[in-house]
Amino acid sequence: MIPVKGYAAQSNTSDLAPWNFERREVGPHDVQFDILYCGVCHSDLHQIKDDWFPGIFPMVPGHEIVGRVVKVGDHVKNFKVGDLAGTGCLVDSCRECENCKQDLEQYCLNGNSQTYNGLEQDKKTPTYGGYSNSIVVHEDFVLHISDKLDLAATAPLLCAGITTYSPLRHWKVGKGHKLAVLGLGGLGHMGVKFGVAFGAEVTVLSTSPKKEADAKKLGAHHFVVTTDPEQVKAARGSFDFILDTVSAEHDLNMYLSLLKTDGTMICVGAPSEPAPVAAFSLLGGRKSLAGSGIGGLAETQEMLDFCAENNIVSDIEMIDIKDIHTAYERMEKGDVRYRFVIDMATL
Amino acid sequence: MIPVKGYAAQSNTSDLAPWNFERREVGPHDVQFDILYCGVCHSDLHQIKDDWFPGIFPMVPGHEIVGRVVKVGDHVKNFKVGDLAGTGCLVDSCRECENCKQDLEQYCLNGNSQTYNGLEQDKKTPTYGGYSNSIVVHEDFVLHISDKLDLAATAPLLCAGITTYSPLRHWKVGKGHKLAVLGLGGLGHMGVKFGVAFGAEVTVLSTSPKKEADAKKLGAHHFVVTTDPEQVKAARGSFDFILDTVSAEHDLNMYLSLLKTDGTMICVGAPSEPAPVAAFSLLGGRKSLAGSGIGGLAETQEMLDFCAENNIVSDIEMIDIKDIHTAYERMEKGDVRYRFVIDMATL
Repeated sequence: MIPVKGYAAQSNTSDLAPWNFERREVGPHDVQFDILYCGVCHSDLHQIKDDWFPGIFPMVPGHEIVGRVVKVGDHVKNFKVGDLAGTGCLVDSCRECENCKQDLEQYCLNGNSQTYNGLEQDKKTPTYGGYSNSIVVHEDFVLHISDKLDLAATAPLLCAGITTYSPLRHWKVGKGHKLAVLGLGGLGHMGVKFGVAFGAEVTVLSTSPKKEADAKKLGAHHFVVTTDPEQVKAARGSFDFILDTVSAEHDLNMYLSLLKTDGTMICVGAPSEPAPVAAFSLLGGRKSLAGSGIGGLAETQEMLDFCAENNIVSDIEMIDIKDIHTAYERMEKGDVRYRFVIDMATL
Repeated sequence: MIPVKGYAAQSNTSDLAPWNFERREVGPHDVQFDILYCGVCHSDLHQIKDDWFPGIFPMVPGHEIVGRVVKVGDHVKNFKVGDLAGTGCLVDSCRECENCKQDLEQYCLNGNSQTYNGLEQDKKTPTYGGYSNSIVVHEDFVLHISDKLDLAATAPLLCAGITTYSPLRHWKVGKGHKLAVLGLGGLGHMGVKFGVAFGAEVTVLSTSPKKEADAKKLGAHHFVVTTDPEQVKAARGSFDFILDTVSAEHDLNMYLSLLKTDGTMICVGAPSEPAPVAAFSLLGGRKSLAGSGIGGLAETQEMLDFCAENNIVSDIEMIDIKDIHTAYERMEKGDVRYRFVIDMATL
């Protein structure tokens, strides 16, 4: 076994603290890479607090992982020692179901293996995430990272990036579409960048008027303050798509009223509680409320390659791992522009 | 003005009772037809009780109207005296907005004129529906009814028919698709007939085990009793589409779990209260919850022609208008197979 240093929560009420654990030896199809940076996702906080479902403890969060390969298994052809590498929300899946066969490992029908707070495909061995100094992952779940981009700023692409890229591609959002991005956080700011890159006319919907300048800097064409009834009224019936990145409670019916006929609101954030939806919000214009979760491995690589070609990364704030709790507190207040990334050298 | 006899509710607490009122004279583009049959829609009851929004009283319900033309305006070319004619949920719209120009009068952006409990395009004159012996409608909102079909059984096509036909066509439901129809009532039984006619593999989802024989007789291939947890479990992840025709409260999340990855649940019923939707119900398989309301005029004619070619009508129970309250009581208990139709000769 390979000894690893990390930060873990020992229970859903304890703070993260240093924890030593072991990873499996590098198998014939495994890649081991030393973690240089790991993004801090809102879902890390949700999961260590058991907001969604009972977690597996000790829990080492982190699924926006980038680093450099230090060892590869005998059968690995696609990676070599010294390569940059990344891993997102998944480290394995059944590979056999209808969805896995269609590169939709995120919807694996037999249950995929989440990078942390999950189980390997043996359905017994817990997985530990990227708040740690090294990781061993099956080569099929390791991504190539371009050296053209700032490496730390690439980490958030592995979750915030693919989670917004995938639905915009699936619903073919682009030229001629009016896209609203609801919420300007880690996911939202990536949604703006991709929406603009795909040619859509992008509006940011936000409760914070002070984010307008940032939204414009990110490329957004318009900004609507959703606490201002006049601005909301003026935006009614105007969007082909709304990418809803908010994971706090919010009024879906109000946002659905901003869609055009045949418009689609795509939820990628996950509030803890179900939200009330009125039938007339959907019936009155053949509207759709859809959801999308991360992306498959092939599409994640496609997204990373697109980012390398188009010079797209996340806007980040680097932190030392000892400051993770301060980062969580600020994240809960929406006080981060736009993603914290842990410099793993500080572990 | 033209004197008309009808049945009206004088307020949201009063029963329906005979009421004499007047219709406008037949204008150059109007068609007057004597009403022979009028279907009884669940929304009639919702509206006379103000379940959805404050109504316009006196209210003459009824928007599944068929009869025979008795007078046409000078400029009317498409109808002549003696023709069969029908009118559904709409008697006018702005005809100028983006949606009207695309034959989507049901989503008129300037507000269409509902057949009853609505206002004409002057936004002042109330509309009165089909529980009456004659009606005057602009020719563009009058449908041709084939004499090949049983006329009384054709009436419900004008609402229950188009409301289920339109979304199945819009989402291109057909061969190779597994379609579930949720609720076997006026809308549901038409959904089954159309689903089968379009080539889909149709399952009826119902709380009433005793409706199984009927479902099969209507052409459904499978039947799932939704109060049986074992049957529900076995149906999980199995449908491409669910056509949700239920307008009473029900657990959308349970039904969303029955969809395949990328599946769509289409709501055509309208419960009075918003229903809670969990983000994970949509995210965990890129699912969509959509809504659809009736259909446009061109599509309604297309549906009527399709029905004439394929010998599709509603299963009905004919009633005298004096028995309307008994019919409502039975409708509320789901005790109708599958649509009441008023024989207007009994007025």
